Amino acid sequence: MPWAGRAARVSRLCPQSPEDLPTREDLLLAAAYVLDAQYNRNVPFETSPQAIRLYYFYNHWTTQVATYFFICVDLALALFEEPALFPLPFLATSIAEILCLTAFFGRLIHFAKITPQMVFWKDTKNICIMVTIVLTLIDLIIYGSLESINVRSIRWSRALRPVFLINFPESRQIRRAFRSLRNTLPDILYVFLLFMFSVLMFSLMALKLFGDRGLKTAEGSPYFENILEIAFELYVLVTTANSPDVMMPAYDFNWWYSLYFIIYIIINTYIFMSVFLAVVYNNYRKHLKNEIRKLAYLKRHKMIAAFNVLKVKVGADFVVEEAQWRRLAQVVAPDMSSAHLELLLRISDEGQKGHVDKMNFLRLADLLNIHVVTISIKRHPLEAWMPRVYQSSASLLVQKMVRHRIFVWVFDVIILINAIFIALDEKNSLISYAEWLFLSLYIIEILLKLYTYDPKAYFERKQFWNWFDTLIIIAALVATVANATIQSAREYNSQQILDIVLILRILRLLRVIVSIQRFRVIVTTLINIGPAMLTFGGLVFVVYYVFAIIGMEVFHGKVQFFDPNFTAPDALVCGNPALQGSAFARGRYCKNNFNDLASAFTVLTELTVVNQWHVLANGFALVTHQAAKLYFILFHIVVVILIVNIFIAFVLEAFFVAYSLEKSEVETAIEKKIQELGVGIQEEELQDGKLTDHVDTKDRGLHGDDGDNKRKALKGLYCRIASKKYRTVDALLQRMFESEIAPENEGSALDEILNFSPSDMCPKNPNFENSA
Amino acid sequence: MPWAGRAARVSRLCPQSPEDLPTREDLLLAAAYVLDAQYNRNVPFETSPQAIRLYYFYNHWTTQVATYFFICVDLALALFEEPALFPLPFLATSIAEILCLTAFFGRLIHFAKITPQMVFWKDTKNICIMVTIVLTLIDLIIYGSLESINVRSIRWSRALRPVFLINFPESRQIRRAFRSLRNTLPDILYVFLLFMFSVLMFSLMALKLFGDRGLKTAEGSPYFENILEIAFELYVLVTTANSPDVMMPAYDFNWWYSLYFIIYIIINTYIFMSVFLAVVYNNYRKHLKNEIRKLAYLKRHKMIAAFNVLKVKVGADFVVEEAQWRRLAQVVAPDMSSAHLELLLRISDEGQKGHVDKMNFLRLADLLNIHVVTISIKRHPLEAWMPRVYQSSASLLVQKMVRHRIFVWVFDVIILINAIFIALDEKNSLISYAEWLFLSLYIIEILLKLYTYDPKAYFERKQFWNWFDTLIIIAALVATVANATIQSAREYNSQQILDIVLILRILRLLRVIVSIQRFRVIVTTLINIGPAMLTFGGLVFVVYYVFAIIGMEVFHGKVQFFDPNFTAPDALVCGNPALQGSAFARGRYCKNNFNDLASAFTVLTELTVVNQWHVLANGFALVTHQAAKLYFILFHIVVVILIVNIFIAFVLEAFFVAYSLEKSEVETAIEKKIQELGVGIQEEELQDGKLTDHVDTKDRGLHGDDGDNKRKALKGLYCRIASKKYRTVDALLQRMFESEIAPENEGSALDEILNFSPSDMCPKNPNFENSA
Repeated sequence: MPWAGRAARVSRLCPQSPEDLPTREDLLLAAAYVLDAQYNRNVPFETSPQAIRLYYFYNHWTTQVATYFFICVDLALALFEEPALFPLPFLATSIAEILCLTAFFGRLIHFAKITPQMVFWKDTKNICIMVTIVLTLIDLIIYGSLESINVRSIRWSRALRPVFLINFPESRQIRRAFRSLRNTLPDILYVFLLFMFSVLMFSLMALKLFGDRGLKTAEGSPYFENILEIAFELYVLVTTANSPDVMMPAYDFNWWYSLYFIIYIIINTYIFMSVFLAVVYNNYRKHLKNEIRKLAYLKRHKMIAAFNVLKVKVGADFVVEEAQWRRLAQVVAPDMSSAHLELLLRISDEGQKGHVDKMNFLRLADLLNIHVVTISIKRHPLEAWMPRVYQSSASLLVQKMVRHRIFVWVFDVIILINAIFIALDEKNSLISYAEWLFLSLYIIEILLKLYTYDPKAYFERKQFWNWFDTLIIIAALVATVANATIQSAREYNSQQILDIVLILRILRLLRVIVSIQRFRVIVTTLINIGPAMLTFGGLVFVVYYVFAIIGMEVFHGKVQFFDPNFTAPDALVCGNPALQGSAFARGRYCKNNFNDLASAFTVLTELTVVNQWHVLANGFALVTHQAAKLYFILFHIVVVILIVNIFIAFVLEAFFVAYSLEKSEVETAIEKKIQELGVGIQEEELQDGKLTDHVDTKDRGLHGDDGDNKRKALKGLYCRIASKKYRTVDALLQRMFESEIAPENEGSALDEILNFSPSDMCPKNPNFENSA
Repeated sequence: MPWAGRAARVSRLCPQSPEDLPTREDLLLAAAYVLDAQYNRNVPFETSPQAIRLYYFYNHWTTQVATYFFICVDLALALFEEPALFPLPFLATSIAEILCLTAFFGRLIHFAKITPQMVFWKDTKNICIMVTIVLTLIDLIIYGSLESINVRSIRWSRALRPVFLINFPESRQIRRAFRSLRNTLPDILYVFLLFMFSVLMFSLMALKLFGDRGLKTAEGSPYFENILEIAFELYVLVTTANSPDVMMPAYDFNWWYSLYFIIYIIINTYIFMSVFLAVVYNNYRKHLKNEIRKLAYLKRHKMIAAFNVLKVKVGADFVVEEAQWRRLAQVVAPDMSSAHLELLLRISDEGQKGHVDKMNFLRLADLLNIHVVTISIKRHPLEAWMPRVYQSSASLLVQKMVRHRIFVWVFDVIILINAIFIALDEKNSLISYAEWLFLSLYIIEILLKLYTYDPKAYFERKQFWNWFDTLIIIAALVATVANATIQSAREYNSQQILDIVLILRILRLLRVIVSIQRFRVIVTTLINIGPAMLTFGGLVFVVYYVFAIIGMEVFHGKVQFFDPNFTAPDALVCGNPALQGSAFARGRYCKNNFNDLASAFTVLTELTVVNQWHVLANGFALVTHQAAKLYFILFHIVVVILIVNIFIAFVLEAFFVAYSLEKSEVETAIEKKIQELGVGIQEEELQDGKLTDHVDTKDRGLHGDDGDNKRKALKGLYCRIASKKYRTVDALLQRMFESEIAPENEGSALDEILNFSPSDMCPKNPNFENSA
């Protein structure tokens, strides 16, 4: 309990001598706690001054970026090793790998220096990394020595590389996704067994019903004569990939046999797959709640530790003095504007008593997490520069026009016409000229908007849609100019650039989304859950990487791709006579091979999409062994049944949270204070594009009524809470749990918190809300 | 407000003369209200004695069965009309149809007699039925007269037939499923538009990127050269049905183009399809809550109406006297045993004051809905018959053995071995004999169980698993005997019977499920949601029927199926030269046609499964017109995007409710009373197969302590709540809402209740429970 120990020592010291102000070290310690609370970091660190400084360095962005850089290099090595996309000699890749391992080891040593010995050695993450480093070194040595005597062996340790990505403390999110996966396994196991039992039962039935009929498939091969083949075909049918082909011979033979397949699909595809989703989703919710609860308690724990470091006794209560609070805030958020700092202090020290009490101090991490944007309100630069012209009736008419709804509609119609022109043949010179016309119209639109709205406010950091709109137009401009250049200078004709130009020209049609409010809402929700989706990207990447490495070792070189124009008989069977007459060769799937990392990832993507996966599985089984199908079945179970279902559970959950979004208590407090200080702007007003209107009004109001002292301090500044809608599922859920922790709750002991389990949660009576 | 009016009249009468006991008519009226509350019927009926009697007849099972019989006949006519599975002359089918229409009209007249005129004419259901009857008659006349002058026209009114299935008041569940569908539409529309926008954007990109390359598909046709074809191909790619084939030409050309398809699939298949599910699910939950809340309030409303009919003033309060209560209960549930009636009265009249107060009276419908099983406890018949033998040490040893866990395991192993024997070739005579051995073992098992447990208790109505087990063994016995008979008498060799025998023999392997507790839990949950799944069956049937009728009119006879052994060139192109070289003909899909109702349903099932649907769509577009693809796209949108997602939402919801199952307040009250009376048996004890043990113990206890008066009344009887786990999602949700209605709440006015909307529900603060 390093935190608690330190905190106890400090609290013993402080009350005795109020003069004993917190030292620079104490401040750093408290700031470390607050930062951990703010970013939900849960690294137990030593509280010695040296360890704290090392901890700051450990959390510094440079070291983090360096770690990720080496992880990327390590993972990317698979591109350069045999079978390689860009071959490099073994010496080069092994030196790079050793460099990466050294970096990882250094990072681990660094971590060992800041965390207590006991904690370090008990942490499986650290053990995992060390074991992987050692195993990789052993593999490198073995492979290297065998290579030197020209024996080709297997670089098996490459499949372990994602361990580094998962196990460094920075990858909390990916680890959590993995935990979701692991936690789901016990519950899903019995459903899976029952499902497999059902598939086997149906296989037996199929064998008895169709085995002796002498039926033939459309390709003329025997139909349903071997129990293992039947089981595989029926497993494929669960994924619907061979429907209705697998049914046709029996159906052609007798109409009634179609009932067998229909019942099979209803039971195994519809019901069992829904049950899988239900079990995964239920588990996901259960464990998500538990994890979030843990985080909420840990945050409280850390904030209390920080408070204990800085507290002094004033009257009967312990408080943190305003000066200390300021110093702390400056350490924690060095970039914060003084207006913002002032605002936070006003909220924390409601009564302006010169100190912050415990309750308010504990909110600091949340306060810091809310982005408050301070905007200095100025008139439109043109208005300041030439007020007469800008306020002239013609100018005002233009501004009114631009603000009008019809302005938006006109440009939607223009975009639509543009889309039709793009679809038409561009060889026609008239259409080519039309391109320039559209582009000019778009540029005029953006200039008009900048004329009407204050450019600074228009391009403010959180005005996502304005940025989006403008970037698309600029890209279109670049694209069209590039296109014209390329077309005039015929000798330069790069395929890639032309493609990018084409895509950019079409992407500008996306502007339609900006002008339809309902579309913006949907897209905003999708963008909000985007970062968390990247976590799934990480999870999928790790699983893909491991499967790709294994696939490359097993299937490398078995299937060759020849240029489509090359019509030798070899090209038709992908260079492997075993594929003669197979659906794999007939579908021209030769490029779906495991001959390099990029191809392997593409094949795995196709397997995730599921369709025709049995053709791929059969193809690779033909060129190796029937047991190779197990590789594909395992991939299907892991990726499609588990990960895709967790992904769906996540999207569902994120949507439900998005539907129930409301302002948090802390945000409400901040907004109230902003309003009290008279420096607020409604976000809605900003978003409706009527920004300057309202600001102007208020601006005048402020100037006419500047007797207030408080207001003077923030004069010329407007604040608003930014990114209210850019909130993650996590943050919202955590807030909900925080509201459940009583303010006076000192928090459980650290060990207790870390051992929370889903079943600990107080069983509430089922009410309508949680079940329906 | 017919109910309220009647109730007011009665309440005005009663207090004036306590002697004025409720008449037989009043009792019938009150009973009608209670029955409506019990079965959640919401038909507003007139309260005149004649109307009430008609209402009883309307709800009688004979008239209901008759209605469904005519609906089935009407729908089944499609099997006999051109294009027919079993052709009948037009005269026969039209007479049958007119008969059905007459029956429907009669039912409608009947309904008009019991419901107030105003209500009848305001109800769109009745209008729908009448309009459909008239339209069908018009269609019949037109078609008949054209037929008589040998002009073939279209029987377009056939697509309207499902209207009868939906719109009779009995089909509440299907109507509700349809309402779910309709309610989802506005919310899903914008997502769908955005989705279509995205597909079109990608189509434009594909046209520009691949249109001019001169690429060829694996079949040699031009690749991505026409914007409409591209849009269709990309829509198919969303369903994953043509992955990875649609990608291969571009991928073969350049590796980078695979990124285009991967991004397309991530956005449109994974993200948009998840969003569709989220929107559908969210809507489903929202509207489900609202509908259930309506039902709960309506139920309360009806119970209050019933109370007002029967109430008399005793002291300060209105109550229902015990004699009236008994008479009511006998009218409502004539089959109830007197012990059960006594139990309910004890619960309703807690203080034994001779009357039931309002609070307790309102619970009556819930009390009646709980199945209380009364078991008369006797010793094992053998024990009564020859106690010495049954209690001998050898007999006791057998009983102990049968009750032991190992007994179950041994039979699991036997089933496993049996499965292996079935998989092996049965031509071998040794295996054929083994069949008899297994069968004998199973019969011995069941006999031993009947020896150990009381047969009456073992085969009690709600002992699902025992019935299941025994029926399977009997079926296996019948199957094996039938098999032997057929094999010995070679001349009789019916394919169907042999198939059924085979399936029955394999089905007995299902017994494994019975012995593994975890499997039983999963299967029980699935069985619980079974009845509600049938609602979806109804919904799907209606949609299928309409699409099938349309499909039969449009695609009838365009594709012919020839026997697989028939190798004429015509057979290879399904009798239509337009299919030459198409994937439809290559896949031998000729039997997937719309030439009769059964085939049409099979094709629609294949389209629901999605895989290869584009091949079917292309095939039928080739033999008719490219616009035919719209039929298939529309079917995909309606069935796969809407109905399948609602189905998944339903299964998810059902599972979450199943996870949060607890005893209801009413059930708890009943159980408490049962315990108080000392006649309770724990359901768990019954389920563990230790039935007679515990009963015996308690039996003895009862005999040794029979001084209690109450107990004597029920002596020799044991009660328990049956089907605790056989509870529907609806019932559970409704109970939750009922607990929200305050007991003293008189209920809102009827009109108000019927106009509840989801947004009325008091907006609660988002708490952790409802969002995560």
